[in-house]
Formats: sequence, C-alpha cells, structure tokens
Amino acid sequence: MEWAPRNEGLYIDSKVTGVRLFDLPVIRDSRGSLSFAEYDQTLPFLPRRYFVVFDVGEGQTRGNHAHRTAHQLLACVKGSCLVDLDNGQTRDEIRLDRPELALYVPPKIWATQKEFSRDGVLLVLASEGYDPDEYIKDYDEFLRIANECDR
Amino acid sequence: MEWAPRNEGLYIDSKVTGVRLFDLPVIRDSRGSLSFAEYDQTLPFLPRRYFVVFDVGEGQTRGNHAHRTAHQLLACVKGSCLVDLDNGQTRDEIRLDRPELALYVPPKIWATQKEFSRDGVLLVLASEGYDPDEYIKDYDEFLRIANECDR
Repeated sequence: MEWAPRNEGLYIDSKVTGVRLFDLPVIRDSRGSLSFAEYDQTLPFLPRRYFVVFDVGEGQTRGNHAHRTAHQLLACVKGSCLVDLDNGQTRDEIRLDRPELALYVPPKIWATQKEFSRDGVLLVLASEGYDPDEYIKDYDEFLRIANECDR
Repeated sequence: MEWAPRNEGLYIDSKVTGVRLFDLPVIRDSRGSLSFAEYDQTLPFLPRRYFVVFDVGEGQTRGNHAHRTAHQLLACVKGSCLVDLDNGQTRDEIRLDRPELALYVPPKIWATQKEFSRDGVLLVLASEGYDPDEYIKDYDEFLRIANECDR
C-alpha cells in the first residue's frame, strides 16, 4: 500500500495481504470516550458512502462477497462480530470487539461477517457509491479474479 | 444549501437554518438491518475524518462548541442522545434515537450532545481533519461570528 499511518494509530497486518487492523487512538475523560480516524493517517481513503448494520439475528451472516474496486473500513462500534477474510490464497479471521478497532479491507478480498453479538452495530465506510456491478458475489468468479492479480 | 437528496432519503429541515435531519433508507431482511448514506445524496460532503463517542456517563454533555469551516453528520448508531443546536439567533433540539437518523450540521452552529443512553454510541463524520484552531469554544466569540454571516 502507498500510504502509512503518520501518528499514534497502531496497526497489525493480516496474513491476508493488504488487510490491516487499526487500533485507533481513544481519548478518554470524565465525559466519556472518543475514538477517531483521519484521512491519510488511519483512514486510507475518502469515503463516499457509509452504512450501518444492526439487529443481526443469532447465527446470521453478512457480506459473503468481494468488491472489484471499493476499499472499505469496518468497525464494530457496539458489541462484536467476527470477520472472515480470504484473498483466494490465504484466509484469516479477525474479531472486532472494541469501537476503536477498524479493519481496512482492500478490493478483491472475499469477506464475511458473522457471530454478531445481540447488540452488535457494524459501521462500514466505503470508497465508492453503491454499484451492484462492483460486487463479486460468485466465489468461483472471485477466485479467478483474485488469482489474476499480483499480490 | 446547493445539494439536495436525489433518492429515497427523507429529511426535515430544522428551524436552525442549514441543519437537516435525514431519515435514511433502511434495508431490512432476515439477516438484519442496514441503513446507508451516500455522497451527493444524503451525505452532503466527503468525510475526511470520523469519530465515535461511547461510554458517556449519565448527565455528561459533549460538544459545546461550533466549527468555523467543518461540516458534520451525526448519527446515534446505538441507543440515543439529544442534540442542542443554536445558530446565534434560533435554537432547536433533536433527539437521535434510531441508527438511520443522521443530522447534518453545517459550520457556525453551536452544538451540544447530552442525555446519552447508557448504551449510546454517537458516530460523527466530519468534512475536515482535526484542527484545534477550527473550533469555536467561546460562546461570545461564536455569537459574533454567527451574526456576521448572512443566513
């Protein structure tokens, strides 16, 4: 990736190349807690869309697709969920269970979110507006596309 | 404002000129619920920063300032809170108690968030990176600046 965090944001890289988990800074005081991410630091793209997933029933999964071109940042801002990640060669799973954990997922990664806690709220920032043609929903097609790319 | 929602997003305008409450679309199915906002529709600016406020104790208030230039969108994505708004001439208060309610606050509006529910999580998208000089924290200075502007 061309960018790198410039300040106090810590991160770990997933074994799924390109996926990065940020442990964002949190400002805690008597009025509560605040975590933040900023473009060019811990927010690696300018979002053009956000969505919030909530009221996910027990045992339900979300995602189950990849994006051709969209970059995403996922944060479980309440409760927790588990994210499965797959770049066609390597898999990883990352639990999001604190508001300040923000998972950067580049294009051409197959991602699934599951094991939502009853109170779980997942925030997703996306680098592009909604375009159904930009989704890859067929896993075999995903494998073809993913394995065409240099990684 | 120069922009207007193009699709199914409904909104009401506050009596505090420029402040707009969006009732975002929600997609509900057996896997849960998803609300979304997109740039140039119900997201009136490209965010360069986001922050999440959580664990706000009973009776605590947040905000208590205005911004010189930053636009913000506020959504209580879990629980609820009450937002006080003031443009130097008119006041309003708006309760955010559903994830799909998104409050657009333009610059030069004094805003305070209070009455957070115990589980309340406030998401804020901002059009600018963090710059302490961009905040107006003195109410008298705010009144001078606010009342210099055409409204």
